[in-house]
Amino acid sequence: MIKAITSKDNPRVKFAYSLKENKNRNANKMFLAETFKSLEMALAQNLVVEVFATDYVELPEDIPLNLVSENILKKLSSNVNPEGVVFIAKMNDKEVKNANKVLYLDEISDPGNMGTLIRTALAFNYDLVVTSENSVSIYNEKVINSSKGAIFAIPVRKGNLSSYKGTHQIIVSDLSKNSIDFNDLELKDKFVLVLGNESRGISKDTKKLADVSIIIPISNIDSLNVSVAGGILMNKIH
Amino acid sequence: MIKAITSKDNPRVKFAYSLKENKNRNANKMFLAETFKSLEMALAQNLVVEVFATDYVELPEDIPLNLVSENILKKLSSNVNPEGVVFIAKMNDKEVKNANKVLYLDEISDPGNMGTLIRTALAFNYDLVVTSENSVSIYNEKVINSSKGAIFAIPVRKGNLSSYKGTHQIIVSDLSKNSIDFNDLELKDKFVLVLGNESRGISKDTKKLADVSIIIPISNIDSLNVSVAGGILMNKIH
Repeated sequence: MIKAITSKDNPRVKFAYSLKENKNRNANKMFLAETFKSLEMALAQNLVVEVFATDYVELPEDIPLNLVSENILKKLSSNVNPEGVVFIAKMNDKEVKNANKVLYLDEISDPGNMGTLIRTALAFNYDLVVTSENSVSIYNEKVINSSKGAIFAIPVRKGNLSSYKGTHQIIVSDLSKNSIDFNDLELKDKFVLVLGNESRGISKDTKKLADVSIIIPISNIDSLNVSVAGGILMNKIH
Repeated sequence: MIKAITSKDNPRVKFAYSLKENKNRNANKMFLAETFKSLEMALAQNLVVEVFATDYVELPEDIPLNLVSENILKKLSSNVNPEGVVFIAKMNDKEVKNANKVLYLDEISDPGNMGTLIRTALAFNYDLVVTSENSVSIYNEKVINSSKGAIFAIPVRKGNLSSYKGTHQIIVSDLSKNSIDFNDLELKDKFVLVLGNESRGISKDTKKLADVSIIIPISNIDSLNVSVAGGILMNKIH
């Protein structure tokens, strides 16, 4: 199904554009993504609804391809120099069973950090990423962009840390003096690695749920960027 | 020296504002920075020239404090919600002798990545960060912001990788199949860790200078974000 669209007022373009707002994403359980690499990763998971591109793209027969002008593509894209493809993707809400390795993001507010942490969790074979209620929206365009397609290959859900208490080892990255060096952690088979807010760190309620608190030994400066800390921890803990 | 400034046309405000442009930063060997934490780190290195703040700030006697309105502060700041202080800092161009642990940034183009990598290099006790000629400007406001004050505590210079050939072990982070697992690296006392461009990776010319090429073992995805990869490598190699 290939169609040429020439007007910005076309209903498909308008619908796609409406997905820039969180309430429309949630109502339709769909979101916008871009780049050919992400499209490839989304196709592999059967999560592509419809594609907008400036040139022909090879797609499965049942996925509509809309050929659009540069201007329409720019309107849909969140990048200054889009790659030439924007697509509508389905939110992946399949139930996740047997998630042994879980990354929990507690009030992460920067979308670049959230996307990067999702990408890193996929790279280290985590089963699931869970975000707290007050974290930035998973389907924010900047999250999607910085996940580099990982959002399609690892399940990401909102959820409560407390639901893992008892079944999983809850490991909290915490800058307090009582934390142990992460190199000395005795890792259990099922665990949740918890990373906290960029400026405030781990909240009190979250600390109460910790089975163990860990720290990365550093010098000269109070803390690392949360994506960097997450990378160092996931490289070891997986 | 405390002065109240009420006009955006005040010459000190205009001078500070001019430092948002690279050519003015280079001509004056000065740049803009903000946040109280960065101010503290810059004061510790005697790199503060002049301060603009909405409230009184304790400063050494010889450093001028300009009390300004919220509006003037917002004009000087690069943040949507500035902390209440912006300052002019001197570029640190003291000669760096005996730099044994060097981070080399080869064509890093994202200012957030560069700032984060500078912050991480400080945290792992590197002696020096060197950036290639075609990397983003060290004194770009986003680099300064994401360095979180580290720019004042670790020397950062433009330079050529070739000047380290022979004296330092040149370790290149490279996704090619010939690279060894970074965990198996035999580290020498003097080394340069090289990280490449966000999309293109390591350039051909840089590869030729490598004494050893290393890779981080990952799954499911081609690569990590360069700040994350840098963090994982520097945590091990320092």
